Amino acid sequence: MTETAAHPVAEQVDAWLSRFEEALTQGDAAAAAELFTEDSFWRDLVSFTWNLKTVEGREGVKDMLEATLAHTKPRGWRTAEPPTETDGIADAWIEFETETGRGRGHLRLRDGQAWTLLTTLYELKGHEEPRGAARPHGVEHGAFSDRETWLEAREREARELGYETQPYVVIVGGGQGGIGLGARLRQLGVPTIIVERNARPGDSWRKRYKSLCLHDPVWYDHMPYIKFPENWPVFSPKDKIGDWLEMYTRVMELNYWTSTTAKSATYDADAGEWNLVVERDGEEITLRPKQLVMATGMSGKPNVPEIPGMETFKGEQHHSSHHPGPDAYAGKKVVVIGSNNSAHDICAALWEKDADVTMVQRSSTHIVRSATLMDVGLSALYSEQAVANGITTEKADLIFASLPYRIMHEFQKPLYDQMRERDADFYERLAKAGFQLDWGDDDSGLFMKYLRRGSGYYIDVGASELVADGKIKLVNGTVDHLSEHGVVMADGTELPADLVVYATGYNSMNGWVADLISQDVADKVGKVWGLGSDTTKDPGPWEGEQRNMWKPTQQEALWFHGGNLHQSRHYSLYLALQLKARLEGLDTPVYGLQEVHHLG
Amino acid sequence: MTETAAHPVAEQVDAWLSRFEEALTQGDAAAAAELFTEDSFWRDLVSFTWNLKTVEGREGVKDMLEATLAHTKPRGWRTAEPPTETDGIADAWIEFETETGRGRGHLRLRDGQAWTLLTTLYELKGHEEPRGAARPHGVEHGAFSDRETWLEAREREARELGYETQPYVVIVGGGQGGIGLGARLRQLGVPTIIVERNARPGDSWRKRYKSLCLHDPVWYDHMPYIKFPENWPVFSPKDKIGDWLEMYTRVMELNYWTSTTAKSATYDADAGEWNLVVERDGEEITLRPKQLVMATGMSGKPNVPEIPGMETFKGEQHHSSHHPGPDAYAGKKVVVIGSNNSAHDICAALWEKDADVTMVQRSSTHIVRSATLMDVGLSALYSEQAVANGITTEKADLIFASLPYRIMHEFQKPLYDQMRERDADFYERLAKAGFQLDWGDDDSGLFMKYLRRGSGYYIDVGASELVADGKIKLVNGTVDHLSEHGVVMADGTELPADLVVYATGYNSMNGWVADLISQDVADKVGKVWGLGSDTTKDPGPWEGEQRNMWKPTQQEALWFHGGNLHQSRHYSLYLALQLKARLEGLDTPVYGLQEVHHLG
Repeated sequence: MTETAAHPVAEQVDAWLSRFEEALTQGDAAAAAELFTEDSFWRDLVSFTWNLKTVEGREGVKDMLEATLAHTKPRGWRTAEPPTETDGIADAWIEFETETGRGRGHLRLRDGQAWTLLTTLYELKGHEEPRGAARPHGVEHGAFSDRETWLEAREREARELGYETQPYVVIVGGGQGGIGLGARLRQLGVPTIIVERNARPGDSWRKRYKSLCLHDPVWYDHMPYIKFPENWPVFSPKDKIGDWLEMYTRVMELNYWTSTTAKSATYDADAGEWNLVVERDGEEITLRPKQLVMATGMSGKPNVPEIPGMETFKGEQHHSSHHPGPDAYAGKKVVVIGSNNSAHDICAALWEKDADVTMVQRSSTHIVRSATLMDVGLSALYSEQAVANGITTEKADLIFASLPYRIMHEFQKPLYDQMRERDADFYERLAKAGFQLDWGDDDSGLFMKYLRRGSGYYIDVGASELVADGKIKLVNGTVDHLSEHGVVMADGTELPADLVVYATGYNSMNGWVADLISQDVADKVGKVWGLGSDTTKDPGPWEGEQRNMWKPTQQEALWFHGGNLHQSRHYSLYLALQLKARLEGLDTPVYGLQEVHHLG
Repeated sequence: MTETAAHPVAEQVDAWLSRFEEALTQGDAAAAAELFTEDSFWRDLVSFTWNLKTVEGREGVKDMLEATLAHTKPRGWRTAEPPTETDGIADAWIEFETETGRGRGHLRLRDGQAWTLLTTLYELKGHEEPRGAARPHGVEHGAFSDRETWLEAREREARELGYETQPYVVIVGGGQGGIGLGARLRQLGVPTIIVERNARPGDSWRKRYKSLCLHDPVWYDHMPYIKFPENWPVFSPKDKIGDWLEMYTRVMELNYWTSTTAKSATYDADAGEWNLVVERDGEEITLRPKQLVMATGMSGKPNVPEIPGMETFKGEQHHSSHHPGPDAYAGKKVVVIGSNNSAHDICAALWEKDADVTMVQRSSTHIVRSATLMDVGLSALYSEQAVANGITTEKADLIFASLPYRIMHEFQKPLYDQMRERDADFYERLAKAGFQLDWGDDDSGLFMKYLRRGSGYYIDVGASELVADGKIKLVNGTVDHLSEHGVVMADGTELPADLVVYATGYNSMNGWVADLISQDVADKVGKVWGLGSDTTKDPGPWEGEQRNMWKPTQQEALWFHGGNLHQSRHYSLYLALQLKARLEGLDTPVYGLQEVHHLG
């Protein structure tokens, strides 16, 4: 990207912004829509729509503006830094404000018209976070009778909240998602309790198989407010990230209830609050929050297949989420059913401990090598180099958010073409070993698979070579049943096993809703996650945004939060602002509340 | 500061650096010295001298270079960013390297000659810290028989170090100083154990009186590697900073032995190691580190005066470091002996709980109001504004370090003149109440008092108004003895007391050496802290640097670390590099090892 000397790009962008401002000020949605290309996208995160919403084309823009302009009163459109131009597309970072808040965004112009526009709310007027120059003083100078110290106030809050006073929000699930959202809510002064079944923050990582490391690099993984230090490893070992989350929870002063299980929840529409029964350290407590956030994780509820013979199998069997690691299985025969991330990690760790390991591949899997994914797929936005180039984590998140989901696969495909070429030998060896590879339904690769279905891939950190070498034995096909001593495939092959691991993934977050609230509410809310791309495991119609994530749902006061560390970090801001606005009683008319096309 | 269009400053600095480089390359110490003004100062932190050393004038420069040039082989002198000019003084950030390491520094030119030069070592060649682009990978990709996970490796290290393997360094004292140094040593791969008598990291803060807050602002207080987040309060409450230190110790993976007391230490010069006996959780263990660092704190060893009648006094009495806070003393009569920071904090907290409080002022005290100190004294270097102006913490530390101690008071005086004027009413009210004020022997104020004697002041956060109002009763004079029921002054006045608090400060770190090692070694090492300014409690002759701090002492392999959070952060780097160089067996000839002029 280059900035030309005469700044024609800057002039072009300024001219567009001023025409846009004029149309909006005059309440002329049609005129504003005319400033967009016919194939345009406007993605709004809360600032206009009190929703996460992408509208398409001039009609989409017009409809959205007609519904929102009068109360939003957007103004003050300006560039935040000098725009740049690449291949005829002008790129601009912009800022603006509305009646209720301040926003930032990103604009791409093609031939002087808006091709993509991202608008995001980052703070509510009068409810700014106390940070930087506005940070708290810490101690009130002067002398006051019966002063309460920080520790006394903190202890009193922890003692009273949930008992004498009610939280405004309860977050069910205290993994990185719940913790990051909890931190944002704390900074916004929203009384919140996070309930977590484990004994310590970070245990959701610690308790998984011992070789687990984050498959995303450190630059992608930062939590809000406190970045990992520059000595932090590229790929965090699970126990190290567990320690980080534990300390983060502490220093961010979250009300984090450990050893607490959410038992049931019902919404009292008249009172506008939930009756949430939890068991905390064995004691049953009813919480009455106004808002309930499910942050139980995409990888929350294990999907264990029902296979005939499971009850008569004499060996050990468990889901990958309960796999303790390889130590007890040296010299044992292990069959791992599944061929995605967990299956590969578990097989490799078992092989390292001299187990006899067989992987059962039931359908094709997308594989990319970690180093390749980093270099080709991530380094422009999330890498040491990106940071050196001024692309902060926050900026990278916005750049990513500025690409409309509808056309994202087009940007992704060429990257995966590069990867396929770069690692051609690797893929050839894998195919020769019988491994069934795919690149997604439309060859758009890993991230699209993640956004659409959250499964179907392995980021290779070494296991694939073991598969290619035959060190991890590979069997393709369908499992028919379990015998007393092994796994029997549809073709009659018996795979002897002391242990069977079901690396068969996780169900939709919707299942948590059915368990905690009711099947009715689960059905009312519908499927969680996916884009409606009409590809495998992500049926249409097109949704435009990820289903039910971080935005209002068909069930009042019920929200979903989660995703990978990048998504949890970025979208927790918009969810926190939506909750804060409701706490403060601001008017929050939702534009384009999503319809339900599929159950869980 | 302005940068002129034609860059004559840059040319001037470049010209000086190139003449300097030429003289050094030719080994011509005299020619190099001629490039300095007659009243010049060169402060070197480890890069030339393997010491912290300030030399003065051309003779000083020449002598230092003659001793160090041949083995240091300095080169590559260049500016790190465009120089600036203020009032005829050119300011330049510079970089250079030596045979063993890389350095940065700061240069001030007056009339084309060096007036002040700061040179600092920041890394050793071949021993760079694994950070940023060189950060650890975290997981070794690939498959390896019997792989050890991060957790297993960490647990093994913790189990073996001090038992099966010996640490290279033991740091006695696990407050912020020991922790920060420990973190740097960990990053440099120097096996280190920190021994701390308390049960948890941070307890040295938690266990102090409950109203205690840091009197320095957050921008001044950052630890190495992980900065406080932008929501952190300006003045940290003691328990909050305790929590931060605890999490820091954990995530930086320090070998931190809690509930451990150092009992005795002797140096075995033949073996080149210490025999350090510690009691860990009740078990006696002998450690044999090559290097011993005392980080017990300037405020480590309480100074309790011996006053006749202490043994017969029927009330409660304790040193300020053991004061539990005011809760138990509502309605009680309390006499606090002393008039510095702790005395004021304790008196105010007691007043807030309705105790009847009397402060005994034995000698004059320097008082500045916190807000004034921030605005006038610190904001240029340590404030939200400074950060916004590009003065990072690291840069602020170097700017501060670039001012020679010899003339620092001249820079400080005008600031305190401003403060005195700004708060004239305040000081008048205090004087009227009988409070004896001073501004340091030469009116140079708080920071010079701190550097010279580490005592004699109060940063007012509210208690002074209580003194001025008479809410805290003030008595001036000498304590003669304690009666059964109170404190009796030299003039015969009896102050009835249920509690007497000795806010009488702390002894020199030297006292810790006498206790732990021997009086002989304590005497050999001499007084710790102070500049030799020939002012109260800081006798001459002039030392040029703080006595014995962060640099080699007269006792081989014995070091002192500490100071406020700024000093601990900044100087821990130089102490860590000195220790690392010795671990690696580099030649570390010390130039200008300090002489001992005073005992403890």
